[in-house]
Amino acid sequence: MTIEELKEEKPWIKRGTVVFMSDFGTVDGAVSAMHGVADEVDHSLRLEDLTHEIPQFNIWEASYRLIQAMTYWAPGTVFVSVVDPGVGSDRASVAVLTKSGHIVVTPDNGTLTHLAKQIGILEVRRISEAENRLKNSQRSYTFHGRDVYAYTGARLAAGIITFDEVGPLLGRETVSLHMQDPVIRDNAIYGSIDILDTRYGSLWTNIQDTMLTEFGVSYGDMLRVTLAYEERIVYSYTLRFCKNFTEVEKGDALVYINSLLCVGIAINQGSFAAEYRIGTGEGWLIKLEKI
Amino acid sequence: MTIEELKEEKPWIKRGTVVFMSDFGTVDGAVSAMHGVADEVDHSLRLEDLTHEIPQFNIWEASYRLIQAMTYWAPGTVFVSVVDPGVGSDRASVAVLTKSGHIVVTPDNGTLTHLAKQIGILEVRRISEAENRLKNSQRSYTFHGRDVYAYTGARLAAGIITFDEVGPLLGRETVSLHMQDPVIRDNAIYGSIDILDTRYGSLWTNIQDTMLTEFGVSYGDMLRVTLAYEERIVYSYTLRFCKNFTEVEKGDALVYINSLLCVGIAINQGSFAAEYRIGTGEGWLIKLEKI
Amino acid sequence: MTIEELKEEKPWIKRGTVVFMSDFGTVDGAVSAMHGVADEVDHSLRLEDLTHEIPQFNIWEASYRLIQAMTYWAPGTVFVSVVDPGVGSDRASVAVLTKSGHIVVTPDNGTLTHLAKQIGILEVRRISEAENRLKNSQRSYTFHGRDVYAYTGARLAAGIITFDEVGPLLGRETVSLHMQDPVIRDNAIYGSIDILDTRYGSLWTNIQDTMLTEFGVSYGDMLRVTLAYEERIVYSYTLRFCKNFTEVEKGDALVYINSLLCVGIAINQGSFAAEYRIGTGEGWLIKLEKI
Repeated sequence: MTIEELKEEKPWIKRGTVVFMSDFGTVDGAVSAMHGVADEVDHSLRLEDLTHEIPQFNIWEASYRLIQAMTYWAPGTVFVSVVDPGVGSDRASVAVLTKSGHIVVTPDNGTLTHLAKQIGILEVRRISEAENRLKNSQRSYTFHGRDVYAYTGARLAAGIITFDEVGPLLGRETVSLHMQDPVIRDNAIYGSIDILDTRYGSLWTNIQDTMLTEFGVSYGDMLRVTLAYEERIVYSYTLRFCKNFTEVEKGDALVYINSLLCVGIAINQGSFAAEYRIGTGEGWLIKLEKI
Repeated sequence: MTIEELKEEKPWIKRGTVVFMSDFGTVDGAVSAMHGVADEVDHSLRLEDLTHEIPQFNIWEASYRLIQAMTYWAPGTVFVSVVDPGVGSDRASVAVLTKSGHIVVTPDNGTLTHLAKQIGILEVRRISEAENRLKNSQRSYTFHGRDVYAYTGARLAAGIITFDEVGPLLGRETVSLHMQDPVIRDNAIYGSIDILDTRYGSLWTNIQDTMLTEFGVSYGDMLRVTLAYEERIVYSYTLRFCKNFTEVEKGDALVYINSLLCVGIAINQGSFAAEYRIGTGEGWLIKLEKI
Repeated sequence: MTIEELKEEKPWIKRGTVVFMSDFGTVDGAVSAMHGVADEVDHSLRLEDLTHEIPQFNIWEASYRLIQAMTYWAPGTVFVSVVDPGVGSDRASVAVLTKSGHIVVTPDNGTLTHLAKQIGILEVRRISEAENRLKNSQRSYTFHGRDVYAYTGARLAAGIITFDEVGPLLGRETVSLHMQDPVIRDNAIYGSIDILDTRYGSLWTNIQDTMLTEFGVSYGDMLRVTLAYEERIVYSYTLRFCKNFTEVEKGDALVYINSLLCVGIAINQGSFAAEYRIGTGEGWLIKLEKI
């Protein structure tokens, strides 16, 4: 679908859903204030939350969580993401239209890294705060999430403004964090460690299941798994590639395909992340070899 | 109402509500992904959460929390419960129709223990994943909550499938954890310790208020309270049976009737659970005697 | 608008929204039970949450969080607040109509302190539990939030009862905690420390931005900031009055206007509250002087 067709169809109005994400937590009333602003824009909108537990100022994790959940929401869903260490500085406030037909309203600070790479961005517009700002909020400089992003996201989803009315066109480029793309090289697969699945302690990589297939790996095969930070190796063991956690003993590590169809490393009923002190993001690499 | 009448009336379609419960926490996007799947099935559904803070893999607590909240939701409400340590193993994925007209979609692993005993199950059906699975999710083996349970729960609530179309009939039996039923014997009431009310530190039993009445106990009476794990006594004191916490001094323990009309043990403005190290579930017993 | 006009217009029915707040946490099913009760009253209501992480029994913080979020919800929104250490005692259960057209259903225990002072209350009615109590809940004495407040809030928002049908008129007075009003005196501004912004560690006062303007302070000015508990000074430094956190170095403290247009004290990308052990509520004072 072309940008023009997508803009004509306006799936976000048909959808009428705004999904919020932030690093605010839910201890105070900040998230509720954003919902309130959106409700006042249009009472018929569906208001949802992705998570508000992004570690404070952690843009990498915001970028990852956004892509993780977005693909399970219908095209047209509007996301409002507020992980914004530079609030009040000159970082741009933008709305982007994705190839999947979703809209994301966010500070352009790297939050769109995974999305730009894995889904693709059709158009970026800078939010004109002259028009797209909650009335009577001009004296508040530190809560753009409520005054600008929630307000603009809701007005898009409600069809009160068109995508073009968000503000001036910035093209298709957004700020990106550095990320190692997965590659097959010298009889090994290399990738980066995207995130720790904090609840279960698994480690998730950006190596897709299709790459394992291409590499000739099947369920039941053994793989040498090496994890490194910069040049330093911090883990290197041979693990089984399993369909289910229960194929190894309780407490044993395994390689599996996670719910996003990427390679994960886990311990059956245990925490891999707690057992081995592994980090995520820039500098962290994984290498897989057949043995 | 007979099963046939209930199936004919389909209160879950009229209700159009799906309530989610899990041990996922809300730090990542997993819960939001389940909501997204349900929203895409039918945008007009009400999507709610019971809790996502069930301790990891704690089926007993899942069973208890389910029954705790379910009775306050209208008949027809569909519950999707995902506490699933055996995901990917051969435990059955089921949808059950309760005597109260609710539907629960869950792994059949003991999550239905309290419900089967206290409310009653009319019919159990195994979910046929051939039909009842999110499209293009076949390569993901570890997130049934999203790919199968959320999807099936939403399609039931939306009236896209009938209850019979969930899959083959398994009868009325579900997997049950062992639980001590409350009884009056030898001038004492015996029961089990169901749960710790974690926020306020109270201890909740499965002894109903009507049993106290039958036993001849009135507000103001003193009761000997004995708590034991297996054969070992871990607490034995005489406490007052109070209508309100404020009837005893701050810091004092009391017996009361909790919000589910069962006997609870608490400390006024303190935590009984923290003060005495009491556990819950199999093996934990309470004995009440009049003095 | 007069009370009569407001009661005639009934914006809460038009709005159809209930927003819940409590100190219950979200670990068990208590919040969900309240939502379930409201859903059964009227399935078309929007059900939202302000926060359920009010520190246990902390009425001051409940009062503050209520006012913080309320003003961002449309007039007519109904709030149900349940921070209720005296549940079951003789504290009154009330519904109040505010000058802003909102309704709050709450125990009258100080939860309305900020609201009464900053927004104003038009009318207070004691809830008649004979009519306004969930059916068959008479034996439960400890969960008024679900059995009385959620039920009454939902029935108001659904238009099933009028505001007058809540119960007998109590006038306009509600229970208030002691609070120091902001004043300019002897070339200084005095105010109280309302709350710690727990996530970011900022300290929020009740001194409004307009008072700084009146005092002749502009962005870039330096201010002497003194914090005291009772008569004892616990902090006294000269800080810059900034529009944005990024105007000072990472780790440096600053004075700013928070998202509620009041004076805040923060550390850029750090936690003022953790650095200096500052409390909130009665007895805590702030003094600002130009230098």
